[in-house]
Amino acid sequence: MPRYRLDIEYDGTGLVGWQRQDNGLSVQQCLEEAIFRFVHHPVQVIGAGRTDAGVHASGQVAHVDLETSIDPHTIINATNFHLRPHRIAVVAAQPVDENFHARFSAKGRRYQYRILNRLAPPVLRHGRVWHVIAPLNIDLMVEGARHLIGRHDFSSFRALYCQAKSPVKTLDQLAVSRAGDEVVIEAAARSFLHNQVRTMVGTLKLVGEEKWRPEAVKAALEARSRAAAGPTAPPEGLCLQSVEY
Amino acid sequence: MPRYRLDIEYDGTGLVGWQRQDNGLSVQQCLEEAIFRFVHHPVQVIGAGRTDAGVHASGQVAHVDLETSIDPHTIINATNFHLRPHRIAVVAAQPVDENFHARFSAKGRRYQYRILNRLAPPVLRHGRVWHVIAPLNIDLMVEGARHLIGRHDFSSFRALYCQAKSPVKTLDQLAVSRAGDEVVIEAAARSFLHNQVRTMVGTLKLVGEEKWRPEAVKAALEARSRAAAGPTAPPEGLCLQSVEY
Repeated sequence: MPRYRLDIEYDGTGLVGWQRQDNGLSVQQCLEEAIFRFVHHPVQVIGAGRTDAGVHASGQVAHVDLETSIDPHTIINATNFHLRPHRIAVVAAQPVDENFHARFSAKGRRYQYRILNRLAPPVLRHGRVWHVIAPLNIDLMVEGARHLIGRHDFSSFRALYCQAKSPVKTLDQLAVSRAGDEVVIEAAARSFLHNQVRTMVGTLKLVGEEKWRPEAVKAALEARSRAAAGPTAPPEGLCLQSVEY
Repeated sequence: MPRYRLDIEYDGTGLVGWQRQDNGLSVQQCLEEAIFRFVHHPVQVIGAGRTDAGVHASGQVAHVDLETSIDPHTIINATNFHLRPHRIAVVAAQPVDENFHARFSAKGRRYQYRILNRLAPPVLRHGRVWHVIAPLNIDLMVEGARHLIGRHDFSSFRALYCQAKSPVKTLDQLAVSRAGDEVVIEAAARSFLHNQVRTMVGTLKLVGEEKWRPEAVKAALEARSRAAAGPTAPPEGLCLQSVEY
């Protein structure tokens, strides 16, 4: 069966996340149903990153096996046609080797988190940013983030219901920068624990507000307890930007 | 009466534009009603750029006269509170001299037009971009744009119902560049004719698609007839970015 890699973009608003669930519409379900409608056989779409409810993606990657070869241009157009009116689109499609596995072949994932840091609420960026009114101190956030980079037990930064076997992960990058009225946080790793990026952001926000000293991030990490870290930042600021193979 | 400068952001989707109209909700009306609700006297909000229905703004500027002095922080918060649920926000407020007039004191306006140039429809940028599938040739668009820069009679690039006394305007900048999967057009001038930016974009798109030679833009300009230029690009790609004083 010919296998295809799909590059996917979606607005996570109102969706239960990437993975199929009983309690609402997922990106996976929308894609599988859209593809079914033109290949006329059930398909399974496997994604690289199982993004949570409300989280967006500009560079999600998935694979799907079809019974017959179909021109990539047709796959893109037919899938996007049947995906309407959902805010999900296949941006690229290409035939790949049967050894390519969107999830297990992935060597890295990159997420971006956007905080709108001003008094006025978001308007043009509504649903794309976390609105934080208190002016954030970037220098302190950068200092706090430094404690998280590298190989650590991230138990303090994982959801209580996280199913990963080990809490040990290697965080390759956690960059904090200001871009106009936004504070942008970029995180890159081979893989992340459930809610890891959002918990790191929620913790760094406390540092930016000067409620926590940067060293408190180190203490939170070493406590290996979810209760020791800050709150989980809301999903709408998060976007899966790219997957590396 | 103390005068205030307001910096305003809005999502133009579903609005009839900046200016009050009988046929729907305008940004001006929303602002005047929101301010009325906490100052308790009628106000008139005068904007720098009378953006059309569906056009966005990240840097609209307006002025308003109040009967008593109010702290700018309070103006921002109270106006934004009463503006809900409209996608309009006052980003900054400051007391100004009574000689400051948002429209007549403006020395320059800058607009940005975004074209999403790919096969897949917009998802995360839905309502913010013009979706053009055919790959656009940027080099030719840059060449075409060059014919429009400077002082010209822009009769070919104005709406038939444009009320400006003279069709002669000086276009200071018309930059075309690629940013990822987008083609971005930046236009700057002291002032623009009605629909001028959108007609210039609609014309340059024909050049990018190689349906028109770049020199045809010069011919269209010299014809001084709206029929000689390309179609008007849709409003959702356009955003008023800043006003200079």
